[in-house]
Amino acid sequence: MKHELSLPEVLSQIEKTVRPQFGKGRVADYIPELATVDPKKFGMAVRTVSGQEYVIGDGDEPFSAQSVTKLFALGIALNRIGDEVWTRVGKEPSGTPFNYLSQLEHEAGFPRNPFINAGALAVVDMLLKGTRRPDLTVRDYMGFLCQNALTIDEAVARSEIETAHKNRAIANLMKGAGTLHHEVETVIAAYCRQCAITLSCRDLARAALPLAAGGYSPVIEETVFPARQARRLNALLLTCGVYDSVGSFAYRVGLPAKSGVGGGIVAIVPGQAAIAVWSPELDRHGTSVVGFAALEAFSQITNCSVL
Amino acid sequence: MKHELSLPEVLSQIEKTVRPQFGKGRVADYIPELATVDPKKFGMAVRTVSGQEYVIGDGDEPFSAQSVTKLFALGIALNRIGDEVWTRVGKEPSGTPFNYLSQLEHEAGFPRNPFINAGALAVVDMLLKGTRRPDLTVRDYMGFLCQNALTIDEAVARSEIETAHKNRAIANLMKGAGTLHHEVETVIAAYCRQCAITLSCRDLARAALPLAAGGYSPVIEETVFPARQARRLNALLLTCGVYDSVGSFAYRVGLPAKSGVGGGIVAIVPGQAAIAVWSPELDRHGTSVVGFAALEAFSQITNCSVL
Amino acid sequence: MKHELSLPEVLSQIEKTVRPQFGKGRVADYIPELATVDPKKFGMAVRTVSGQEYVIGDGDEPFSAQSVTKLFALGIALNRIGDEVWTRVGKEPSGTPFNYLSQLEHEAGFPRNPFINAGALAVVDMLLKGTRRPDLTVRDYMGFLCQNALTIDEAVARSEIETAHKNRAIANLMKGAGTLHHEVETVIAAYCRQCAITLSCRDLARAALPLAAGGYSPVIEETVFPARQARRLNALLLTCGVYDSVGSFAYRVGLPAKSGVGGGIVAIVPGQAAIAVWSPELDRHGTSVVGFAALEAFSQITNCSVL
Amino acid sequence: MKHELSLPEVLSQIEKTVRPQFGKGRVADYIPELATVDPKKFGMAVRTVSGQEYVIGDGDEPFSAQSVTKLFALGIALNRIGDEVWTRVGKEPSGTPFNYLSQLEHEAGFPRNPFINAGALAVVDMLLKGTRRPDLTVRDYMGFLCQNALTIDEAVARSEIETAHKNRAIANLMKGAGTLHHEVETVIAAYCRQCAITLSCRDLARAALPLAAGGYSPVIEETVFPARQARRLNALLLTCGVYDSVGSFAYRVGLPAKSGVGGGIVAIVPGQAAIAVWSPELDRHGTSVVGFAALEAFSQITNCSVL
Repeated sequence: MKHELSLPEVLSQIEKTVRPQFGKGRVADYIPELATVDPKKFGMAVRTVSGQEYVIGDGDEPFSAQSVTKLFALGIALNRIGDEVWTRVGKEPSGTPFNYLSQLEHEAGFPRNPFINAGALAVVDMLLKGTRRPDLTVRDYMGFLCQNALTIDEAVARSEIETAHKNRAIANLMKGAGTLHHEVETVIAAYCRQCAITLSCRDLARAALPLAAGGYSPVIEETVFPARQARRLNALLLTCGVYDSVGSFAYRVGLPAKSGVGGGIVAIVPGQAAIAVWSPELDRHGTSVVGFAALEAFSQITNCSVL
Repeated sequence: MKHELSLPEVLSQIEKTVRPQFGKGRVADYIPELATVDPKKFGMAVRTVSGQEYVIGDGDEPFSAQSVTKLFALGIALNRIGDEVWTRVGKEPSGTPFNYLSQLEHEAGFPRNPFINAGALAVVDMLLKGTRRPDLTVRDYMGFLCQNALTIDEAVARSEIETAHKNRAIANLMKGAGTLHHEVETVIAAYCRQCAITLSCRDLARAALPLAAGGYSPVIEETVFPARQARRLNALLLTCGVYDSVGSFAYRVGLPAKSGVGGGIVAIVPGQAAIAVWSPELDRHGTSVVGFAALEAFSQITNCSVL
Repeated sequence: MKHELSLPEVLSQIEKTVRPQFGKGRVADYIPELATVDPKKFGMAVRTVSGQEYVIGDGDEPFSAQSVTKLFALGIALNRIGDEVWTRVGKEPSGTPFNYLSQLEHEAGFPRNPFINAGALAVVDMLLKGTRRPDLTVRDYMGFLCQNALTIDEAVARSEIETAHKNRAIANLMKGAGTLHHEVETVIAAYCRQCAITLSCRDLARAALPLAAGGYSPVIEETVFPARQARRLNALLLTCGVYDSVGSFAYRVGLPAKSGVGGGIVAIVPGQAAIAVWSPELDRHGTSVVGFAALEAFSQITNCSVL
Repeated sequence: MKHELSLPEVLSQIEKTVRPQFGKGRVADYIPELATVDPKKFGMAVRTVSGQEYVIGDGDEPFSAQSVTKLFALGIALNRIGDEVWTRVGKEPSGTPFNYLSQLEHEAGFPRNPFINAGALAVVDMLLKGTRRPDLTVRDYMGFLCQNALTIDEAVARSEIETAHKNRAIANLMKGAGTLHHEVETVIAAYCRQCAITLSCRDLARAALPLAAGGYSPVIEETVFPARQARRLNALLLTCGVYDSVGSFAYRVGLPAKSGVGGGIVAIVPGQAAIAVWSPELDRHGTSVVGFAALEAFSQITNCSVL
């Protein structure tokens, strides 16, 4: 990050830059409970490897982490069973989401990567081998990393479990193909509850910091996974972390990142910082419009693209 | 049917003709309970519009009707709600089965025809509007048509409900798309139980006879649906009744027919007769190998192709 | 055909019945030269096995046969190489046209049936083995069957050859897969010229008559193919002859038929008659709107459905 | 690149490391002329931003650049028409190659990215607007960047043009969809000739160096494109540069790269160096087995992953 402005100045400038983006997206409504959030929310947090931490806007307000949790669930699975993870899920971008069930069917129930829903369900299934409540495991792991007691939003979890028809279709397809070992409803419930974990931008930037610090967490002053794993997770994020916007995201931002339909995005500047941003209005690919713009501005101002 | 042999002679000749076909197919094993049937079973029954009835081999032994029931479920739905049926299911052949979930996804959960699983689930969903137990309705309607008290094989039904992952995937996809109105598990249970109805070739030939007699049943001496509906159901059978073998079946047999993975096939000679055949070994498309050969022989000997 | 009206009365009634259908379709415009035809044209011809022949409207005016020629090209191929045809093309309906290139790609360049473009190109390729000008062979065979010297519309042929991009894509896919043996441009040119054959409804009804008469042509008083082949061609027509409207067509008309984007349709009443109809406005599946309605009316009035 | 070994020591170690990989892949044989190359060839070249240059093995022997040229063709198009390029081609990874024609068909002839064949054909089509011989333009631009007079291998070009059936299918599909403006054969010829450009690893490392140096070429001491374009091209390479191995490549190597079926791969270490490697044996995705292993070793030893 080579730039003349201080981080607070950078954040303040971003806040102004993104203002015209409000109103261009739509709050997720396929999960009824998520649709109730205020669309104008905007928060951002930067936590550097060297210990600086800056938070603006609604950056201390908890939001629904959703797919952002997939990153941490994968981290736990890799810590537990290592490369065996890759016998059950791939590492390649999936192409378009609209046919993700078709792709899964053509590929005999083997998910492309751990960040599409099919892959995340497979990861939950892996975690179920060692625990009956992987949602709590993920919640506690993320809470441990950010040193905050996180909660699962029960209303959101219930709402998701009720309406998770497409995910049930995916899970049943995998069950039929033998690529899911536990009961469909057990996997779906754990998955939906995991997605309903809430945390703030500050929490998220802290929790993701080991990815920027070679597996070491300056927050808890502990190595949580090997440097090699950090590098590999970043590679997965860069090629698969933002669904079918992954190419545009790399083109405009140039950082490994994971987005969620709650409007959160976490991005990694390897060696330097973790950035979390939250704003609920989504583009048609399910990524926060204002969050995307904020990260693009951050990358441009600080010149921190990995490319 | 222009032929010099009497029907008993025809059937006796067919019995010899098909003998070399045994061992070429495989008994359905995806439903564990179905896999226990004796693969060498073979029965056939012909019931003519004019009242003749001939049965050979195991033609009086009950077998699992499976997809053959879809024809009768559709008949009930058409009797109840008429052309409204076609607002919820199409009338076109689906092409290959291997991508049937993909096709359904691309077509927003609208099933191609009432004989693929997706379409049959939609029909069950329609019937659920008027009754809580459509499986019993179908069982009783088929029993009424053949004048025999039919039963549902509870072991087969349970086995199907337990292993119906692919059907659950389909039903959840439709539920998510809004093309299924009732609970997925309610539809699946009714569908699996309907498939588990058992009946003999004699029963089946009798039950299907109205399709050969313009909607009139010589068995119960009653008109059960309009002539126009008989013609239309026969058209659907000819273009969609044998999954992705429909072209080959028309080419080799030339009769409207419906097959099931229990090994049964029912075929219609419009104006003349209904023929039922049963033999459990299936080709890779899910159609009885010996049954297919028997119907081909019947069509050739009696010259009864509609074409 | 059981009906109280004479054939002239039937045709006259149809002419009135279909009048409201004009304006509901659109003349084919993807071949520029075809777009110039008068959309209000309507002709119909019935030729019975017993020698009756009735023609109404524009039934003596030549129109562009287009895909209707595929039926006769297939007939020649079957006469020449018999069942070897089926080693190079299938007999199953294709499902939707919108993905027909995708289907061909997934099935390694093996066409579903001889009536989709891929299959018709394969048939042209077969004919090229014995002649350098299969278009002339098809033209002369059709001319022979209707006892009229038919011509190829050179302007239409040129127009098609110039704009046959999608067909070239198909042919090149097949060439790459090894399922086309001759040069792509040779096959495309022959195919486009074959499609540009023109004939009248009267010609067409006469040419197709052997399909209604077990392979015998009452017109030329000669058997042109075995009865078995007539039956099989009718089966192919019924399951694959009207692209992705094949189910609806069987449902509403119940006769084997082949349609073309020139607005012509030929239908067969086995044992009785061949019917040709022409009207240029097409539905979105490429079938003549008025022609479809006319055949539906004919089938209803004369009760001639095979089902 | 933080490492204790000198670059010559690194390269010497890699040469030993990759030896066991020989024999695991297969030389491309779909272009007959490419199949004649010696499978045991291996060359590598590193050129640093600061002016160091090291070459080992067959690193000075010219090989067929193939898809590696797509990177430079895109560079020219971006220099000429800027972001207008993105109105004709996307920026997202394509998913699997086996269905790339299907994907193109579903997306109405709009290519996913400039590095799949469809996208590269679109780029050639863009270049054809300003020149009749874009193959020469690309050859001369690459030659200019590496300060060497490059040649087009006429035998390879001819061989490719003769056998480019799949590419012709793609181009015709695009022509039909209106996403290709020039004649199919003109585009195909220019594309095949562009692919047949030959150059050595040394040439390639020099030519790609501006991507590592913010658009500045230390070789010719000139800025050839803006820093922003270098960053964006690297982003495209990282998400789309290695076909359907892009995820695995990022996971194992972590550098932007472009591979070709001639066995060449060029990789970029932003801010530091360009690396070219060549070895003809390919994995089933079309990427050099030994080249992939060599870059993985380089990335591990020098710790130069961008992630």
